[in-house]
Parts: sequence; C-alpha cells; structure tokens
Amino acid sequence: MERLVLLLVRVASWLFTTCYLTNDFENPNFRERLRETVESLLDLKVVPVFNENDAISTRKAPYEDSSGIFWDNDSLAGLLAIELKADLLVLLSDVDGLYSGPPSEPQSKIIHTYIKEKHHSEITFGDKSRVGRGGMTAKVKAAFVASNSGTPVVITSGFASQSILRVLQGEKIGTLFHKDASLWEPSKDVSAREMAVAARECSRRLQNLSSDERKKILLDVADALEANEDLIRAENEADVLAAQDAGYEKSLVARLTLKPGKIASLAKSIRTLAHMEDPINQILKRTEVAENLVLEKTSCPLGVLLIVFESRPDALVQIASLAIRSGNGLLLKGGKEAMRSNTILHKVITDALPGSVGKRLIGLVTSRDEIADLLKLDDVIDLVIPRGSNKLVSQIKASTKIPVLGHADGVCHVYIDKSADMDIAKRIVMDAKIDYPAACNAMETLLVHKDLIKSPGLDDILISLKTEGVSIYGGPVAHEVLSIPKADSFHHEYSSMACTVEFVDDVQSAIDHIHRYGSAHTDCIVTTDSKVAETFLRQVDSAAVFHNASTRFSDGARFGLGAEVGISTGRIHARGPVGVEGLLTTRWIMRGSGQVVNGDKDVAYTHKNLPLQ
Amino acid sequence: MERLVLLLVRVASWLFTTCYLTNDFENPNFRERLRETVESLLDLKVVPVFNENDAISTRKAPYEDSSGIFWDNDSLAGLLAIELKADLLVLLSDVDGLYSGPPSEPQSKIIHTYIKEKHHSEITFGDKSRVGRGGMTAKVKAAFVASNSGTPVVITSGFASQSILRVLQGEKIGTLFHKDASLWEPSKDVSAREMAVAARECSRRLQNLSSDERKKILLDVADALEANEDLIRAENEADVLAAQDAGYEKSLVARLTLKPGKIASLAKSIRTLAHMEDPINQILKRTEVAENLVLEKTSCPLGVLLIVFESRPDALVQIASLAIRSGNGLLLKGGKEAMRSNTILHKVITDALPGSVGKRLIGLVTSRDEIADLLKLDDVIDLVIPRGSNKLVSQIKASTKIPVLGHADGVCHVYIDKSADMDIAKRIVMDAKIDYPAACNAMETLLVHKDLIKSPGLDDILISLKTEGVSIYGGPVAHEVLSIPKADSFHHEYSSMACTVEFVDDVQSAIDHIHRYGSAHTDCIVTTDSKVAETFLRQVDSAAVFHNASTRFSDGARFGLGAEVGISTGRIHARGPVGVEGLLTTRWIMRGSGQVVNGDKDVAYTHKNLPLQ
Repeated sequence: MERLVLLLVRVASWLFTTCYLTNDFENPNFRERLRETVESLLDLKVVPVFNENDAISTRKAPYEDSSGIFWDNDSLAGLLAIELKADLLVLLSDVDGLYSGPPSEPQSKIIHTYIKEKHHSEITFGDKSRVGRGGMTAKVKAAFVASNSGTPVVITSGFASQSILRVLQGEKIGTLFHKDASLWEPSKDVSAREMAVAARECSRRLQNLSSDERKKILLDVADALEANEDLIRAENEADVLAAQDAGYEKSLVARLTLKPGKIASLAKSIRTLAHMEDPINQILKRTEVAENLVLEKTSCPLGVLLIVFESRPDALVQIASLAIRSGNGLLLKGGKEAMRSNTILHKVITDALPGSVGKRLIGLVTSRDEIADLLKLDDVIDLVIPRGSNKLVSQIKASTKIPVLGHADGVCHVYIDKSADMDIAKRIVMDAKIDYPAACNAMETLLVHKDLIKSPGLDDILISLKTEGVSIYGGPVAHEVLSIPKADSFHHEYSSMACTVEFVDDVQSAIDHIHRYGSAHTDCIVTTDSKVAETFLRQVDSAAVFHNASTRFSDGARFGLGAEVGISTGRIHARGPVGVEGLLTTRWIMRGSGQVVNGDKDVAYTHKNLPLQ
Repeated sequence: MERLVLLLVRVASWLFTTCYLTNDFENPNFRERLRETVESLLDLKVVPVFNENDAISTRKAPYEDSSGIFWDNDSLAGLLAIELKADLLVLLSDVDGLYSGPPSEPQSKIIHTYIKEKHHSEITFGDKSRVGRGGMTAKVKAAFVASNSGTPVVITSGFASQSILRVLQGEKIGTLFHKDASLWEPSKDVSAREMAVAARECSRRLQNLSSDERKKILLDVADALEANEDLIRAENEADVLAAQDAGYEKSLVARLTLKPGKIASLAKSIRTLAHMEDPINQILKRTEVAENLVLEKTSCPLGVLLIVFESRPDALVQIASLAIRSGNGLLLKGGKEAMRSNTILHKVITDALPGSVGKRLIGLVTSRDEIADLLKLDDVIDLVIPRGSNKLVSQIKASTKIPVLGHADGVCHVYIDKSADMDIAKRIVMDAKIDYPAACNAMETLLVHKDLIKSPGLDDILISLKTEGVSIYGGPVAHEVLSIPKADSFHHEYSSMACTVEFVDDVQSAIDHIHRYGSAHTDCIVTTDSKVAETFLRQVDSAAVFHNASTRFSDGARFGLGAEVGISTGRIHARGPVGVEGLLTTRWIMRGSGQVVNGDKDVAYTHKNLPLQ
C-alpha cells in the first residue's frame, strides 16, 4: 500500500505553477526566496512548473548585457538552472538539436557536442542565419549562459519518443553544452565523420596522381615498414604482453603477434601490389555514340572504405595498401588489444604518404567511437569490410545501411556422387575438412550418393576422418544408417574438427539440399561423370562451385587475384573471393563537340564499339 | 480536478486478484457468477488480475478432452476469454510469436496469421518439436480453443516495447489466431515471401535452359502481347476511365494510358532484347590456376528482383522482359490505379512462359501487401528497383536493407568555362534544361566562370532561358551581380522550367561546388581548352561526366546499353545508366582432377590467363 500512496502524491504534484517578472532575477533577495521555495517543494516531492508571462516580459533589453533579465522560457530556464544549481537542463525543441546549417540541407549535420572554438564560426544566428530558427537561437544562448555557469545543457526534440528519459540514460541524442567540452576528446561522431570526409578528399587527390606516382607511394610504404621494423616489433610485443597479462585466449594472442619475418613478407606483398597493373582509370568499354561523341566506361575508386578488424595488426597493412592501390580513402577500426601495434603501423604508413595526397587518406579510429556510431555514417562511407569472426560480420550486417562486403556463414558442402573416384573423394574430403578447419571455405557437410551406403570407399573416408579426430554427426538418414549422433541442424558451421554427413538420392537432391541449407559460399562435387558434374556446376547457385577440387581453393590468392579483400556471399557488387576490383566502381565519361539530345531528332546514333586504345 | 480523481481510481484498481480451482469451469453456476463479478468490476473501472494456483492445478487430464479444465495460465486465459466473450486475448511469450520452426534456424519464419489447414502440418508440438518450447505449445492450444469460440488471439512477446498497445493499434506483430483466418486472403507476409521463393526456383530453371530456349520465351511473350492487344487495351481503358472518374491528375492519367502503337513498340523492343547476345552463363575470365585446374568467372542472374513502379503499365512489360533475358525471378508491385492493366499484362506474359520454367517466375503482388512489408523480405529478394518519383525512391532507400538500384536526386550541373565556345554553351544549356525539364538528367544548376560576368555570350544564354520560360535563381554571387532572386539551396532539383545560376572562380571551384552540392548523377563542362576539360573529366566524381555534350545523353538507350534498368547514383554494383548487366552477378566455377590445398605445399600455382573460349 505504501507504494500506491507515494505514487498518488507524485501524481498530484505535477501542476504547481508560478510566474515571475522579467527582472526579478536582478534582486538577490528574490533569488534566495526562490531557491528556498523550490527546494522545499522538491523535498515534498512536488514538481514545480515555471512559465514566462508574455504580458509583462520585455523584449527590448539585450540578453547578453543583463544576465538578470529574461524574455522567453528559454532564458528563464537558463537563469533558473543557474540559480537552483541544477544538475542538468534539458531544452526541448521541435528539431533534433543544433545543426551545422539549415536542417533541410543534406550537408547539415547535428552537432552532438557543442565546442565553442570549433562551432561558433560555423554557425550564425538570427532570422537569416544558416541555423534558420529564432527559437533555436534563444535556446543556444540560454545553453551558453547555463553551461558556462556549470549546469550542462542538452537541446533535444520534444517530439521524439521519451527524449527526456533517453537524455537521462546518457544516450547521445540532441546537442550537449558543457563548460569543459573543449577539453574533451573530439566528440565521437564528429571526429569519425570528419575523418571520412577528409579521407574522401585525400582519395580524390590520390586518384589524380599518375600511375607511377601511386606505385611509388606503395614502394615507399614497403620501405618505411622495413625501416621501422624494430619500432613496430617493440610496440607489438607490448600489446602481446598486455594481452597475455590480461589473460586473453591463446588463439587471440597468436593472431595478435607479428611473427619474425612478417614485416618482410608484408613489405614483399606491398611491392607485388605496386607492380601490378594499375586498376584505376582503366577504360573498360569504349563506344562511339554518334559522330564525334565518344563514351568511355572507366574504373574508379569506390570512395571511402571502413574496415573493422579484430586482433591481426597485419590486416591493417594489407588493407591500407589495397586502399592505396585502388585509390580509396580508408577508416580503420581495430581491436583495442592491438592498439599500440595499430597506432605505430598507421603512423609509419601515413608518414610515407606524400603531402600532395595527405596523411588523412587513412584514418585510424582510436577514440572511444563505437562501431555502432561508425556504421551510421552511411552518407560518407561507401563500403564496410569486416575482417573477423562470423559474429562480427553478422552484427555489422544487421546494423548498418552501408553495403557490407563479406560473409557471415561458410557452410560448404562436398557431394560425392555414385560415379566418384573414391581416392579423389577421400583426398578432397580430408583436405576440405582438415587443412584448416576454422576457415570459412572448410567443408561442414558431406553429402553422399545413397548407392555408396556401406561401400568400402565411403567407410574408408569416414574412418580416416575419425582417425584424424573429426567428430561426425548425421542427418536423419545417416544417423540411422551409420549409427552416429544426430546433427542439430544442417545449416551449421562447425569451424572445427567436426562435420555433418547425410545421404542423398542423386545429384538433384544434393543440389536441392545445398540450396536449402547452404550459405552459397563454396560447394564441390566429386564425380567422374562429366554430365553430372556439369549439372552440378551449372545449377548450384553459390559464389564458387568446384568439380574434383578441394573447397579450400576458394581464396583470392589461390584464385590468382593478388591481394584478397575478402570473400563475399552477397550477390550485389562482388561475389566469392574478391581482389582489388571489389574496391572499384565505374564512371561514364563522354567527349563531344556540342551535341544535344533535342528529343532525339537530330542525333544519328551509331553505338559502335571502339577498341580500348 | 476531475481528471486527477479518475486517474487515482484507475491507479488504485490494478491489483485485484482471484484464484480458481482447475475444474471450476465445469460448473455452470460458477461460470455465471464469474461473468457477473467480472462485469461488475469492469463497470467500476477495476481491472481484475487472474492467476492459476500451481498448488491445486492438475496436470494429468488432457486439455483437449476436458474443456472445463485448465492447468496453467495459458489455458486459464483461453477459458476466461471464452467465458467473458472477450474482444481479444493477448498471450505474452518470451519470443515474438509462433515460428514455423525453431527460431534459431535461419529458415524459420514468424507466422503472422495462423491458418490451420496450412500451418498445422508444418509445425509439430511437444518438447522435441520444431517449435521447441513447451510454453509455446500451451499458448497455441489455448489460442485454438479461444479463437474457435470466437475470441481472436494474438501471441506476441512480453519483452518487446509496448507490445500490448501495438497489438491494440492493429500493428502486425506476433501471431494472430482467428476462426475465419482460412477464409481471408493469404496472409500478407507469407504470400509475398512464398512468391519470392517460388520466383527463385523458377529462375533457377530458367537459367538452366539453353540460350535459344530463353530467346524463344521472349519471342513468345512478344507474340502474346500482340495477340492480346484488344484485351489489354480494354483493361487499360477501364483503368484510365476509373482514374479520370476518381479525379486523378492529368499527368498521372497520361502515364497510365497505353497509347495506340504502344503494344507494338513494346513487342518490338522485346524482340530486340531476344536477339541480343545472351548475357548469362558468359565466361568473363578464365584462369589456369594449376595444371588441370581451370577457374572460370561466369555471369549469372542476381536471383529475385522486386520492382516497385507507379502508374506506367508499360514498365511492367519492360521489366518482365529484362528479367527473362537476365534469368531473374521477379516480384512486381504496381500502383492500384493500374491494377487492371497490370493484371492482364501479367497474365499474358506469364501464360507465355513454358511449363519447364513455371508461371511463378514473375509474381504480381496484388494483395493488400504494403510496400513496407515487401521491403522486409531481404532474405529472399536480392535487389529492389523503384521506378517512380524521387519521393518513392527516397522512401524505399530509407526503409529497406535490400540493395536499391536507382537514384533519388538528379542535381546535374553544366559548367561554362571561360574558354567555352559560347554557341556550344548555349546549345547545351538550352537542351540540358528544356529538352525534358522533369528528367533526372536535366540541368538544375548552371555554373559560369567569373570572367564571363556581363559577357554578351552569357547574357544571350540567360535571355534565351527566360524567353523559353525558365525561372532563374542565383547563388550569393549571381543574385547580386545579375539582380535575380536568391536560390534557397544549391542542392535543389527543380524538375521544372527553373534553374540556379552561380559564378565560380575557375574549373577547380566548379569541381568543388559539384562535389559539395551535387548528387553525383551527371555533370558537364563546356570548354575549348582540352586541358581544363580533362581536369574536369578526371576529377568530377559523378556517375557520368561529359565534355561539350548535353547532360540529357545520360540514358541507357542513348548510351547504347539496350533496355535500361535504371540510372544508379550508388557506387556499389552498378553506376550511371544501367542495362541488363545491372541484373547480373558472377559465379566462380573450377574444374579440377582431385587437387587439394594441403597447406599450399603440393600445388604449383601457374595463374595463367586463358582465352575465353
């Protein structure tokens, strides 16, 4: 019953209203009485509501020169906050907060933390200001006064759901004013956004260099890495020691460690990249549209990439060199366990960039930016490439509108047809499962033609798997026939020394099974019947489909693509193992001599393919 | 004060609890007293809370055979709902509703409307059921009982925010049980999803046909359209009359109308498409990875496309023929004003599809499915192509995780350099603005080198624009210099006889302006200085960049791409005017002879480019 009573008191307390004259605040006695009254009311759990009285408020005196005068509820709120030493003042507006320009302009962005030194020149106030609302001007002025006196202020929308509660819970909505804001780290969102914008500008300059100049940058980066090997190794050792001290898993520590020779091998692969054919500004197609009107489709960088990677500092080097090669700007977000390694690698690489491009081509996001905040920057980042666990990839895919290049699942199948050469089948199955069981291109499910049930060849394969330590689970049929434990699900990536086995009626049921339960990554058929093989190769709708070759070949380096960006199971843009071309888009360039469309009445279209020069 | 009192009564009324014996419901007197008591309480605005008493409830008797016995809160709720003739029973669970299988399996989908005939066989109950939760079994049984007796039931999550309110507001969350559900139209989500899945299966069969067979389908479709012209025109006229009666805008009615000769021209363009080189199963790249290990990159369909189009029924024909040509499955969602036209066109086209492919290759979504529901099907739809207003495109981009091919804005620029041939400049500016002002490739902003201020050439252009009826607005400089009204924003697509003019210092400031305010669609430079032209062509980062040619050329047909899918300002997948290739992805096919990776110790990689056969 006590709870109810308390509730009732609170409910009854909402509507206590008082009014003040505009210049009351200049009177010290008044201010003292006000403070005492409000404190007493609050002790009684009564929430007072204050309101400015339009009829008697003055609008003539300038606010700045008379801190004891208010002429609207915003200035009243600011004065009250100071007087009552409020912990926080929340000003509710009809927009989400303070914008850098009129909210209708696409380049206007909400300012999450107002920093006077930074934002004051950006924003002008008043009726014709870029901010555009008189109401906002009053709120910002009230926020200056209150925050400078020690009460932090948040301006946010009064229309958004539960905005006051969300501010109290520390959610980053609206615009925060705090007297120490300029001493803080750069505000999260602003800094990552600025890094992305700067990376795009640098990438445009990079794209403008000659092919030889871009090549030289890569060679300089390779030299710089080797020249700074001791420094890099020292920082990496510090990370490794810290990770060991913190009791991180052994596998993480292993991934974190730059092994001896790693710097040299990274430098070597960068030099290989430097000497490959320049992928950008290539003419992919040339068409004579009409006389003296020539159209070219050319390759160009995507723009700005965001790479989210875990542990491996070598990924930073690989990705940075791929970005330089493809003319892209880059934001890197590494794991905090590799912070020192990433910082030194980033410094060495960006120090090697020429002034004509600018160090900000590659940004290392080291502030407390959360991945979730970076993933909101879909207007300034063109592609996200997650390098890490399936969980990381899935989370990123689920929480961004930026296109993601990668794959969450790798449920790869090997299907042994009745016509298979069982020696080949054994070799492929063993390699596909055992060569690197945690790889995304490792076999997770072995499908076997039903005619091979209890055949010596299949028994040999199953025994070999078990001998190597592979746990075998069965689908409904195999579970019965082979008396093995039942698999929980056919759509399961063990990523370890385990696999599922199931029998199917024929190649068509194998294909159906793969379509139903697979992840469209890499699937393989083992058969000597070329007609059956072609059926499988033609029908299986996965990024990579193999005949008589291990699924482990599904890899950029093994495919001969040079450096690998990742493996994509998406169907848009790039699919399967992706090399530099996954970081490119195209541009149409047309050179004319004054041609106009004019209802297509005058132009004699020829649409002739021209040689690519 | 009255409000407050009312509030207090309601607050005080929440905690009235009663308990019942499990078999009380078998007693008619008890049931009558129960009903009367609850009604009296409700009249007093008291909300009774019921709870099953674990200590005395029986778990032995089977629920089905004894409708007067309950043994948990779910069955109690079902019985109470019947007894009190409740308008709605909401059962709260810890999952979002009833799934077709274990919620952890990716192919399990929430069932939005339970239809006994359809779902009963799909789902098995009990501890080891595919539904997986004993608690859900009890809820579903209670839902059967209550809904069969006339009280609709929604099972939804008790953890989701405001789920009860959202159910009451009619939002489609959870699983609905209703005794008439089987008589309704197929439930929204299920039907569109099923259509998408069926379209994918048919597309796989279509892809498997020979190139000649696919060609024949297109020719058959063209013939069928011509053979059914009278029927199609009759249905279209009915739509047009209805739209006129309904008072739709003239421009909409015009777009809706299939003009005389339109069917013939559609048939002709389908025949052109039929005779073009087959875009799928093309080998794009061939590599010898190692001896007897050959890798091919081949073209293949994306999968399932969703086209959302407004008014124009001819768009249905174009898109359907493009889908057939590219081997894709298709869902079509047209405007309701074109319902009869779309229905007959869809029927004529799908009737022409061979049984080996299946009519369900192309689904016309005619049920009450909302676009928002279709846009949620990101696991079964690969690409959305909106064909309609900028608003439609923007809304779709903002509300789906499916990749969208299209463009929201077309803020195209023409920059007149100081070295321009002013006759060419005039011709291009007039065409770019006037040829079709509503087109996305029409000029919206004219940038002019500052040296041309008050030059006769520029004055001539401005006068000609005005003479043709174009309203001219100025940026800050042009507004002053030319004494013209000020433009509200540089990022503005007039889509009408209006444009913005501004002066810039040189080609570099023109480029910066375009990067800052443009939409990366199509931009043009007019100059006789080839060095300046190349700077512009190389640096402007838009989908199409022209020298001395009208922006209006930015179009699939004028580019010679054949049928146009759309114009993309995205940087991923396809960019600029997009032909059939925008509906394709790639597949890697590898043919080996038993090769395995085995830590890359045995394979001698050759990575030799092979001719494309």
